Amino acid sequence: MTQSDESTFIGIDLGGSTLKGALVSNSGEILQEIRQETEHESSSALVKQLAEAVRSLRADRRATRAGAIGIGIPGLVNRKTNRVELMPNLPSLADIDITAELGRDVGLPVILDNDANAAAYGELQAGAARGRRDVFFVTLGTGIGAGLIIDGRIYRGAAGFAGEFGHMTIDPEGIECVCGNIGCLETICSGPNIVRRTRERLYRDRTSSLSRLALPRDREFTAEDIAHAARDGDEMAQVMMERTGMFLGIAIAAVVNLLNVEMVVMGGGVMDAGELILNPTIKETRRRAFPPSFDSCQIVIAKLGPSAGMIGSALMARDQAT
Amino acid sequence: MTQSDESTFIGIDLGGSTLKGALVSNSGEILQEIRQETEHESSSALVKQLAEAVRSLRADRRATRAGAIGIGIPGLVNRKTNRVELMPNLPSLADIDITAELGRDVGLPVILDNDANAAAYGELQAGAARGRRDVFFVTLGTGIGAGLIIDGRIYRGAAGFAGEFGHMTIDPEGIECVCGNIGCLETICSGPNIVRRTRERLYRDRTSSLSRLALPRDREFTAEDIAHAARDGDEMAQVMMERTGMFLGIAIAAVVNLLNVEMVVMGGGVMDAGELILNPTIKETRRRAFPPSFDSCQIVIAKLGPSAGMIGSALMARDQAT
Repeated sequence: MTQSDESTFIGIDLGGSTLKGALVSNSGEILQEIRQETEHESSSALVKQLAEAVRSLRADRRATRAGAIGIGIPGLVNRKTNRVELMPNLPSLADIDITAELGRDVGLPVILDNDANAAAYGELQAGAARGRRDVFFVTLGTGIGAGLIIDGRIYRGAAGFAGEFGHMTIDPEGIECVCGNIGCLETICSGPNIVRRTRERLYRDRTSSLSRLALPRDREFTAEDIAHAARDGDEMAQVMMERTGMFLGIAIAAVVNLLNVEMVVMGGGVMDAGELILNPTIKETRRRAFPPSFDSCQIVIAKLGPSAGMIGSALMARDQAT
Repeated sequence: MTQSDESTFIGIDLGGSTLKGALVSNSGEILQEIRQETEHESSSALVKQLAEAVRSLRADRRATRAGAIGIGIPGLVNRKTNRVELMPNLPSLADIDITAELGRDVGLPVILDNDANAAAYGELQAGAARGRRDVFFVTLGTGIGAGLIIDGRIYRGAAGFAGEFGHMTIDPEGIECVCGNIGCLETICSGPNIVRRTRERLYRDRTSSLSRLALPRDREFTAEDIAHAARDGDEMAQVMMERTGMFLGIAIAAVVNLLNVEMVVMGGGVMDAGELILNPTIKETRRRAFPPSFDSCQIVIAKLGPSAGMIGSALMARDQAT
């Protein structure tokens, strides 16, 4: 850490639909926050939007010194080329060197990483995994992302693509995933697939008509709605959270066995269900993992909620940008 | 590396049935080798056997200078206590601090590690993965072991248990594993399970009576026999190797996605089938892994064969013992 304790940093969580940005203190506290719809017109319009977001955050009186900028994106960043790959939600980003273009515009160093890596780093530096060395972070949302911390640092792998946990095969004879594989964890436990499984169950299970999720029958609902209904006591929603946790436990047990991490941190909107999803996940992981590996690992809920990506991006910028 | 190029080291592969030891040069060449049945009477008898093996290897005229000793064992080594855990094949080792006792007896530093880690290190330093940084090593034998190399070093995890690849769930509704879990990779692809699956198929598939594996019907055979029969053109054996490779590919794809390693090295007796098992493994991994992660990874057969563990243990001693 070369910056003084008074430095501030900017963290941006650049989603396919929403751009969230924050001015973050040296210790990971959010001082100021903005939220906008992501610009999709062109890559230059997106760079312009980012530059304006940065300028507006730096206009805050607490932005005392120039700091660096970190951006988390829903895609893979190739460490060798610093270009993004596989980013279906923001295709315009694949054409440009966003760090160079934004950096030139705002006159600050910019670093770019996968959004799950950014959130993992946030939880490591300022959240549930503070002070840990070997941590697996999972985020359950529209997709399932993961960030792997090894020996206190984000592990990115040979080309920068490490952490693709959502496409681990859970059911070799399962349904087809958007990635082309069959029976990925995402085909069961991602937000849209939790909704799909819930709809199927509402359709075939007569007793499920007691669930508020089904009233009215064609109401649109999200995985977060199911999580909240579960917390509010809806039995059907609780069953869905329990079964989701069970499938997550199958995959997490594989990671616990393979990596012997000391902590698994679970974040993302689906985790709003809290212990209703955490406990079945822990139960299934215990059932399937090696006892000594399970015993040396804690499985916990993330602490930073939807701010993890912004805080983590800012702190990555603090620690990496030069 | 603090030793001179002329130093020699001793590597021991301590199996449940066989103890193999080698005098190894600084560059990983085997200069002298011994092979004995493992002593099971008591832990002190085992220490005595190891000490005598070391003395006999050091009596070789090429054992020019005192070097350190590395031992690979078929169990988990707890890095915090330096004790072994979960070692069903050699229970007597769990009671003693083998590094201290053997070290005292022979007057040399001794290091202890899991045998798959040792073999992985051998392949990294003197085999198929030479010069690589991020490598996943799998060994297919009585069990399925794995060693994970991250940034050029063995990754052991929080307590030393990392690499338990064989107990990744492949079929959540599969058969029970010795570990207590259901549908582990080992229940399909370990040596004894390849034999079990082959026997079942010989029993139910009439055309399989053409296979030499079935003649005579009650002949005992091993997974290595199936591998050799496959190489010799036995179609039934080839189908079994192909299907085994397919299941391995499911699990390896998960690792490739999760860790984005640059190389997967496959060793162990089952790999005697060569491309007959490698090619279906690669095919299934390609089908299931993320294209950019698959494209940045080579999947190859190990180079050191059954010597990987001895060479790796010796070179671990070279690089770690003080």
